[in-house]
Amino acid sequence: MAEVRNKYVVKKNHIDGVPNESDFSICEELLSLKLHSHVSNNVVIVKNLYVSIDPYQINRMKPHSSSHIIASTASVVLPGQAIEAGGVGRVVESWHPDFKTGDFVSGLLHWGEYSVVEGGQQLQKLDTTVAIWLLQEANICKAKVFEAVVAFTHLQKFFASHKLLKQVGSSGITAYGGFFQVCKPKKGEKVFVSAASGSVGILVGQYAKLSGCYVVGCAGTKEKVDLLKEKLGFDDAFNYKEEPNLNLALQRYFPEGIDIYFDNVGGEMLEAAVENLKSFGRIAICGVISEYTGTQKRAKLDMVGVIYKRIRIEGFLCVDFVDIYPEFISTTMQHLQTGKLKAIEDISYGVENIPTAFIDLFHGNNIGKKVVKIAQE
Amino acid sequence: MAEVRNKYVVKKNHIDGVPNESDFSICEELLSLKLHSHVSNNVVIVKNLYVSIDPYQINRMKPHSSSHIIASTASVVLPGQAIEAGGVGRVVESWHPDFKTGDFVSGLLHWGEYSVVEGGQQLQKLDTTVAIWLLQEANICKAKVFEAVVAFTHLQKFFASHKLLKQVGSSGITAYGGFFQVCKPKKGEKVFVSAASGSVGILVGQYAKLSGCYVVGCAGTKEKVDLLKEKLGFDDAFNYKEEPNLNLALQRYFPEGIDIYFDNVGGEMLEAAVENLKSFGRIAICGVISEYTGTQKRAKLDMVGVIYKRIRIEGFLCVDFVDIYPEFISTTMQHLQTGKLKAIEDISYGVENIPTAFIDLFHGNNIGKKVVKIAQE
Repeated sequence: MAEVRNKYVVKKNHIDGVPNESDFSICEELLSLKLHSHVSNNVVIVKNLYVSIDPYQINRMKPHSSSHIIASTASVVLPGQAIEAGGVGRVVESWHPDFKTGDFVSGLLHWGEYSVVEGGQQLQKLDTTVAIWLLQEANICKAKVFEAVVAFTHLQKFFASHKLLKQVGSSGITAYGGFFQVCKPKKGEKVFVSAASGSVGILVGQYAKLSGCYVVGCAGTKEKVDLLKEKLGFDDAFNYKEEPNLNLALQRYFPEGIDIYFDNVGGEMLEAAVENLKSFGRIAICGVISEYTGTQKRAKLDMVGVIYKRIRIEGFLCVDFVDIYPEFISTTMQHLQTGKLKAIEDISYGVENIPTAFIDLFHGNNIGKKVVKIAQE
Repeated sequence: MAEVRNKYVVKKNHIDGVPNESDFSICEELLSLKLHSHVSNNVVIVKNLYVSIDPYQINRMKPHSSSHIIASTASVVLPGQAIEAGGVGRVVESWHPDFKTGDFVSGLLHWGEYSVVEGGQQLQKLDTTVAIWLLQEANICKAKVFEAVVAFTHLQKFFASHKLLKQVGSSGITAYGGFFQVCKPKKGEKVFVSAASGSVGILVGQYAKLSGCYVVGCAGTKEKVDLLKEKLGFDDAFNYKEEPNLNLALQRYFPEGIDIYFDNVGGEMLEAAVENLKSFGRIAICGVISEYTGTQKRAKLDMVGVIYKRIRIEGFLCVDFVDIYPEFISTTMQHLQTGKLKAIEDISYGVENIPTAFIDLFHGNNIGKKVVKIAQE
């Protein structure tokens, strides 16, 4: 096989607001599997099986990145370029000594049928038995956890040399690190999670319950609210769309105030949370989906309250949690196995459906971790 | 002497914006020094010598305090009530076993000629020799440090029983604790201080220089800017009123970005600082004078930048720095004695001038710590 047909998603233009179908197109190319340059560049060609769909990707589709931002996950994707995303796939050709045809891999792939990856640094090899089992289960969230266990020895070496964690099980470590490292919860504290039925929020709420906290989540539909309360063990949950005044809503759910706010949305909800935070309250800024699509929605925070209540507001990225990765894996594995922690996925099928899956995130149409299945194997 | 004439300042109405002369009046009363109730309430009557004028006091003059705020320094002062303020004075009558007529004291007094203080918990006794020397020098900033040294044993007991530090040398410990505890500076880091010629900013900039940081301050007049650069050792300083675009100004003074922003003003300057912060930058929210007089000036922060740059924004109050008080005193004393640290005061005279001195703070008319001298002894 010297070449394959590869369909992949590109953005047609820079995106400066809520993304639309018209912002994307599906390209088709003949992908050469045998190029001289592949040898010197240690290229690995991967057939994609699953790709991840995450809100943060919108930040790479804007006309420009924020100033002084050095995180690699913030560099701008140009129109016509393949769009990077976390994923799981199988090697079809490799000029890299660590990978061979047939290997299952996870890492930073592309929104497409195939990914051409140079240097191999953004790939981790998966144990074949585990990978096949996982793919049969079609359970990508558990896969993210298991893959990390399997690839752990490899990762340790990788972390040591690069001091960087790429896209491996990012929702899990984001939730774990953001909650435990940034929020520093204590038993009995009151925790509020926004976008609580999203990939990260679902895990944060469950980690908080496992830590003995009182947890309230908000989401945008009755179905999601029911899921949080009935299946995921949240103490309470509400539909923010039915609340004309978020400040009053939070007063109702937290009459004594909030200790920890895990923010996935920003904007008015962040403002209301600051109003309702207790003294020494903490806010982990994980995502601000309401602000990703327009700076006019930026939160106007009550800084007088921030001072008098000694509030700490902190942004973070999962790449900073390398040190607690072993702890994350062992704790999370244990809770998944005993059923104390539940993983929820939202799966679409086929490259053609990637743009819709992505756009849906900004309309709250997903429940749990959004992934697109590209191929069976 | 059974009674004295006491002039004191009251607010005539709640204040909901920039304070004006018309918001205040000077009351005069006949103050009874011998009341039966004084005995049971452990009253101490103090003749005020110096009183402190601080921006945060505006927050107690508003119609209502922020929700969930428990700090005692945030409770609302009612129209007609005497207004609490840090100060130094001399006891004229005492029904409290720890204080006797003639004692020099510091603590929470009132904006007036006399203060009637119940229970004595908000007072500390000063050593007479030191107090007289200090008053001769008319140097209240140094006084604040010395008084704290003198009263230290007393304070230790006080802290142990109340877990609270009242108004003792508050500018000093605010600057010290805010900079070292909240900002956690490292040698060589780039530090930006707003309201840098104010009582706290002056000290923060000097502490930063003593820590081997690069320091730029901003202020509102050429005179202040010159003071920062020429007398206080700031690496650079600028007049924010001459900068049409604060974002560009900060880019010019910090081409590689800011590590630490010590915020005394909030609003647009805070927005611009977030834009110019480096990864892992820290912002200590000490005061937001631009927001004290109107919520419409609240900063709209770039939370996407906060996430990608892992910025930490933290509010604090000096009452939380009890643990580092001994360290603050010894370090600061040493630097004051060797001349490495300079204290700057801005003194007005007489009760009648208290409202103007206070209003001036909101127009940037003070340089250094603002105090009003009420009497010589």
